[in-house]
Amino acid sequence: MPQTSEINRQIVLNERPKGEPDANTLRMTTTEVPVPGANEMLVRTVYLSLDPYMRGRMNDAKSYAEPVSIGGVITAQVVAQVVSSNLDGFEPGDYVLSGSGWQDYAITDGTEVMNLGKSPENPSWALGILGMPGYTAYAGLLKIGEPKPGETVVVAAAAGPVGATVGQIAKLKGCRVVGIAGGAEKCAHIVENLGFDACIDHTAVDFADQLKAACPDGIDVYFENVGGKVLYAVLPLLNPFARVPVCGIVAWYNLPGLPDGPDMGPAIMGTLLRMKVKMQGFIIFDNFTREVYEEFRRDMMGWLQDGSIKYKEHMVDGLENAPDAFNQLLSGGNFGKMVVNVGV
Amino acid sequence: MPQTSEINRQIVLNERPKGEPDANTLRMTTTEVPVPGANEMLVRTVYLSLDPYMRGRMNDAKSYAEPVSIGGVITAQVVAQVVSSNLDGFEPGDYVLSGSGWQDYAITDGTEVMNLGKSPENPSWALGILGMPGYTAYAGLLKIGEPKPGETVVVAAAAGPVGATVGQIAKLKGCRVVGIAGGAEKCAHIVENLGFDACIDHTAVDFADQLKAACPDGIDVYFENVGGKVLYAVLPLLNPFARVPVCGIVAWYNLPGLPDGPDMGPAIMGTLLRMKVKMQGFIIFDNFTREVYEEFRRDMMGWLQDGSIKYKEHMVDGLENAPDAFNQLLSGGNFGKMVVNVGV
Repeated sequence: MPQTSEINRQIVLNERPKGEPDANTLRMTTTEVPVPGANEMLVRTVYLSLDPYMRGRMNDAKSYAEPVSIGGVITAQVVAQVVSSNLDGFEPGDYVLSGSGWQDYAITDGTEVMNLGKSPENPSWALGILGMPGYTAYAGLLKIGEPKPGETVVVAAAAGPVGATVGQIAKLKGCRVVGIAGGAEKCAHIVENLGFDACIDHTAVDFADQLKAACPDGIDVYFENVGGKVLYAVLPLLNPFARVPVCGIVAWYNLPGLPDGPDMGPAIMGTLLRMKVKMQGFIIFDNFTREVYEEFRRDMMGWLQDGSIKYKEHMVDGLENAPDAFNQLLSGGNFGKMVVNVGV
Repeated sequence: MPQTSEINRQIVLNERPKGEPDANTLRMTTTEVPVPGANEMLVRTVYLSLDPYMRGRMNDAKSYAEPVSIGGVITAQVVAQVVSSNLDGFEPGDYVLSGSGWQDYAITDGTEVMNLGKSPENPSWALGILGMPGYTAYAGLLKIGEPKPGETVVVAAAAGPVGATVGQIAKLKGCRVVGIAGGAEKCAHIVENLGFDACIDHTAVDFADQLKAACPDGIDVYFENVGGKVLYAVLPLLNPFARVPVCGIVAWYNLPGLPDGPDMGPAIMGTLLRMKVKMQGFIIFDNFTREVYEEFRRDMMGWLQDGSIKYKEHMVDGLENAPDAFNQLLSGGNFGKMVVNVGV
């Protein structure tokens, strides 16, 4: 069932997942296409962004954002087009960045909606390199990681939109950059196309040894977006005064509970203490000011225009395929920023 | 065998401990009293400081300082008196703060030795409230913890020299302060004499529940000096943007290896992420500049003089009792700053 102008397909939370989301976690439902009231507009989803943080919203747990309720539409940013508008500043045909969620149509009063204009060059990039993932990479690396020329920066999920951007910015800042990714194809891309100094395949049995060999001077900045065995391989390599921006722990998002031991708590805390490490969690739109965002937009536009930053998307067709694509994302099966083409 | 002018008693590392130091870990040996050469002086230990960090020096592990070698004198700061001096600026009878270690006599060229004068008011305080522990509390709390009036500050080992000082400074800064200590006597002292708002006994079976009840507005600053179950009870109470200066993890210093699970790594990292927490390890003389030290000395002298900071010592008699006293310190058996009277 493709997108039509007649009905609104929605993907809603059917039950909270224990571990990996399965066939019962999400379901598709349909409603009528809603009609905008005064000072509202109707927008039609063109591109849907899939991001690891959405897994957290499916839990009923204390976090930085409200969980999705049972029966609620899954949270997401989308690039949409205005269908009809009773709002100043938005006209039919305008592309917008909107928090519509996993559905074809949404009504909005324009709050936190950004107008991208009638014909943006790469409209879906607002979900990636020019949006939340790009900004996360930029601010987390530069404002918390504070990399200095000659230092070693390590980043996992290096073929993903955050990791790839972190590594490329770190190269621009004069660092030695080591990526971590799953499989030879991604690693080749990361070194050959993105210019990282090395990339380690985390599926290798001697992954930790390879990482150590690739970081002969230790690690000064570890951009944490995966947790799990990558974190534990990084810990013994951290240098005095290392910085660890904590952006995500995707390897652990599907845990139904705490994993078996040993308890690595003493290793984490002992490393922080002995090596005088700073670890700092951040949520991009909570931690940084508007000035940092403007700085990001200015720098990133420049880097994209002069070709010093490259960007890759992993496009999936059809809203109905979003649940499977999301599980693929959580298990590292994406190669580039995962975007669902809902209604191009 | 008391201190004499004839021989130099030394406590040296006999073998590296696996877990808690035992009767084979340390041994007393004697040497002749050494004779100072040109530009050297001989100092006689009066007070020996016992501090948890010494446990780490007994391991052969990558850390911020060199381990003590087998047969080497255990590292320590002492308050000593100059016996004879071929050094400008030091005369017989002067009290000095020196890194002599666990022994009666030492030769020094004056490097990193501070002259305390002929008759300091409380010479042993240079090992505690006016020395490394006091400075650790001051700089860790104020420069990393950055407490704001009205915030909740939690500190463990609150009857020890660092914890007691952290809590009293936090009170001076207008915070709600909750201490954690072992036993009713210490907790009573902490609330009644030191002015903390509450103190929780970590030996209580419902310790975690009591801590939660004592922190109705969550925790904004957790000064980490113990690790273990206290850390794990604190994690779910941390507020958004909480700060965690990591000064020590004494509950884990005797671990022979990683403890059994579950693995709390995901809980630590997940809390950092969701709550946007900053955790930062520090080693007092590596992290802070001379200016911070001067600021500490100025503030602390004032607070001691006007009675707004109180200080308690746990004095043990005799160098031969230092090993038992050190184990007592590691298990939380001290009540106040542990100091050995070696030769008053």
